[in-house]
Amino acid sequence: MHALRAVVGPERVLHRPEELFAYECDGLTLHRARPAAVVLPRDTDEVSRLVKACRRAGTPFVPRGAGTGLSGGALALEDGVVIECSRMNRVLEVNAAEGWAVVQPGVVNAHLAKAVAAHGLFYAPDPSSEAVCTIGGNVAENSGGPHTLKYGTTTHHVLALQLVLPDGEVLRLGSVAGWDPGYDLRGAVIGGEGTLGIVTEVTVRLVPRPEAVETLLAIFPDVVSACRAVGAVIRKGLVPAAMEIVDQRTIRAVEDSVYAAGLPTDAGAVLIAELDGAPEALARECAAVVDLCSREGADRVEVAGDEEERVRFWRARKGAFGAMGRLAPDLYVHDAVVPRPRLPEVLEQVCAIGDRYGLKLSNVFHAGDGNLHPNISFDRRDPDELARVMAAGEEILRTCVEAGGVISGEHGIGTEKRDFLGLVYDEDDLEPMRRLRAAFDPERVCNPGKVFPTTRFCVESDPKARGYDEVPL
Amino acid sequence: MHALRAVVGPERVLHRPEELFAYECDGLTLHRARPAAVVLPRDTDEVSRLVKACRRAGTPFVPRGAGTGLSGGALALEDGVVIECSRMNRVLEVNAAEGWAVVQPGVVNAHLAKAVAAHGLFYAPDPSSEAVCTIGGNVAENSGGPHTLKYGTTTHHVLALQLVLPDGEVLRLGSVAGWDPGYDLRGAVIGGEGTLGIVTEVTVRLVPRPEAVETLLAIFPDVVSACRAVGAVIRKGLVPAAMEIVDQRTIRAVEDSVYAAGLPTDAGAVLIAELDGAPEALARECAAVVDLCSREGADRVEVAGDEEERVRFWRARKGAFGAMGRLAPDLYVHDAVVPRPRLPEVLEQVCAIGDRYGLKLSNVFHAGDGNLHPNISFDRRDPDELARVMAAGEEILRTCVEAGGVISGEHGIGTEKRDFLGLVYDEDDLEPMRRLRAAFDPERVCNPGKVFPTTRFCVESDPKARGYDEVPL
Repeated sequence: MHALRAVVGPERVLHRPEELFAYECDGLTLHRARPAAVVLPRDTDEVSRLVKACRRAGTPFVPRGAGTGLSGGALALEDGVVIECSRMNRVLEVNAAEGWAVVQPGVVNAHLAKAVAAHGLFYAPDPSSEAVCTIGGNVAENSGGPHTLKYGTTTHHVLALQLVLPDGEVLRLGSVAGWDPGYDLRGAVIGGEGTLGIVTEVTVRLVPRPEAVETLLAIFPDVVSACRAVGAVIRKGLVPAAMEIVDQRTIRAVEDSVYAAGLPTDAGAVLIAELDGAPEALARECAAVVDLCSREGADRVEVAGDEEERVRFWRARKGAFGAMGRLAPDLYVHDAVVPRPRLPEVLEQVCAIGDRYGLKLSNVFHAGDGNLHPNISFDRRDPDELARVMAAGEEILRTCVEAGGVISGEHGIGTEKRDFLGLVYDEDDLEPMRRLRAAFDPERVCNPGKVFPTTRFCVESDPKARGYDEVPL
Repeated sequence: MHALRAVVGPERVLHRPEELFAYECDGLTLHRARPAAVVLPRDTDEVSRLVKACRRAGTPFVPRGAGTGLSGGALALEDGVVIECSRMNRVLEVNAAEGWAVVQPGVVNAHLAKAVAAHGLFYAPDPSSEAVCTIGGNVAENSGGPHTLKYGTTTHHVLALQLVLPDGEVLRLGSVAGWDPGYDLRGAVIGGEGTLGIVTEVTVRLVPRPEAVETLLAIFPDVVSACRAVGAVIRKGLVPAAMEIVDQRTIRAVEDSVYAAGLPTDAGAVLIAELDGAPEALARECAAVVDLCSREGADRVEVAGDEEERVRFWRARKGAFGAMGRLAPDLYVHDAVVPRPRLPEVLEQVCAIGDRYGLKLSNVFHAGDGNLHPNISFDRRDPDELARVMAAGEEILRTCVEAGGVISGEHGIGTEKRDFLGLVYDEDDLEPMRRLRAAFDPERVCNPGKVFPTTRFCVESDPKARGYDEVPL
């Protein structure tokens, strides 16, 4: 504690229980761990000195942005220290001519969008939590968002990084030119869930705002026909900027909430599709999407007539997670990806699993990417319901993997799925990742207890290693 | 030798001097090393057994595709064995509905394009050597090509890899779903120049062929005004599929060759720009590019009227390297990237360097990406000229780095630039890459002597390590 205060002063070290309470969990409220302290550095040099102080004391540390993560990735296990980057929230440079900006990790995603809008540019990755989540957190999780379909995830939009390594050294990875001689370690750090170091500066790629945008809302009798429409659009060779599906239970929650968007609550599902690009082509592409939706059984397809209507359509999607608060005190947001053509069948199986366990399961997801978000609303104070939530979650993951999918699209592994990594990787597959981790963080002080399965790790690799694997959650 | 024959049989192990001659160098004829043997495996299992045999014998090995690399990356140093993948040339699966294909590493880039064309799909990375270079080599170098501007490099189009690790174990990285839980090691292997293992299967992303294409040829009085036109197009927010510049000396070589494209040999430079996408928008975008070229001083801009004319325009670009054979017996193809707005000034400096050293320097390059290819035509039997080639090359690299660029865009570091890595990375920057390398290949048998500077590596990290650093070239 003294060593931390020596770096940032006493007022930027939080240690009282009431101060630490907010840092006990992230968006995954099921996993909790109270940190020993939370420090609020302002720049790279402070982060480097904090990391060195933690390492000297053998204290684990974990970077944290806005705490909107959904896999427990920002939890400080083993009495660790949270290095919280919210004070590192400056846009350091915008180079509109070359199409890039340098930002600190605590910059909020939507604030970056605002900061560059005047230049006719935008930063493409747009997680649903864009209004609060930070670029540093986006880098840690390789975040996507509705527009990932056309624009890709965070890794496609980060040109360079400044990273404080677990030994406190400061490293630059990548370049504004967009080319990195040597190994692409930039790519390993993005999506590395804060286990390879703490990102302290991010050079992001900015892209020109599309000349025109068309947004459609298609009402379907059921979620499966909506999925089929998505497949038909893609097979047609169209690449919409986004294709998002919201199912009936979610529609009802949204319509009951402050986000009400005027959707028919008897609709089985709605598909929100957005097309962008050159205005001359949009009318035809838009008509093609309307036609394909109708052929797949849409009851009605509306095209937004103006920006106000466009915002209303999106409210059904963006307000979904907020509206779910109406259904139950807790929400478990699942995340898995399946090959797009398998979506209809997998979704039917997922809904059947929810029914079988008697759970309130709703779906709001990036259909164009095959990225499912089955959401389970529940009350964690009810031990029986909690047990059913966990059992159903595991079954959902297994179903997705059996369909040729993976267990996480954009929320990471964190503490949540570390013991499910075995569904997609065997021990031999994991070994090179473990070696990479050990190469960066041989003393395992940087965000320990995340990503890797809790079995058989420390003991075999290093008898002197910390026993963080057995941390109870 | 016996151990190699035991895996693939005697007829697929080459060892006589006349058989090995072709494997002494790749496209960089300046660096040469004769391998101890060349083996021609047919599948993953054979590669795995060959790697295990080499490792047991302590013999280094290096994967090789078509040998079109330009940085000496496929040289077998230290009496090493070349594992040449040309017999692994099958397209194993095409899944048109999901937009991917699984191929062996020896598949030729252009053959893959042909294999998927009937499905209305294409594989985007298109190196200039596409007619002969292999997908495995493309993965090793993270190859780009003219269409990188819009479509990205190999790493953006490889969903998954099968890799034989330096210990012979077989690993899968990535997934067809396009999402990888855990670290993005797929990204580290792509562009890893064959130092992290041997890729034995590649799952590539296929994208729909554009609905329409327009190709323009703009004739400029000098290369600097052509560069300015490229900058103006990008600043306008247009993203052409490709923007390539060919300078006067290259035009003359092309027009004297079998690739003659009817270009005016007194033109200072030509810009080939290609736009693709929805037909309705192309006419306007095409007109905008024509207008911007004229404003920046183009003498004339032609738009291809049909496919035949389009092919003719491209011949000026694609035939350039072949045509250079007319200028001198040897060609040194340089590769560096600078921020696009710096192109005009850097190009003037590069030309001045060539003149100062009295060299035949020509430029044909991916202008849209800021990716320069200054080409020096020379005769390596002339020691004085050779010395000037090397000195000029180093000066060109330093100039690009001073302009905020990097020393390689798409040709890799290999043996060619390992001692120039210090221009962009200091020892602290290199340390994590060395750790990654050591984590994958602790015994340094997999393509040793590449990428990393020859100074201070083995000795400090491991006193028992092989002394491959001092290998004479």
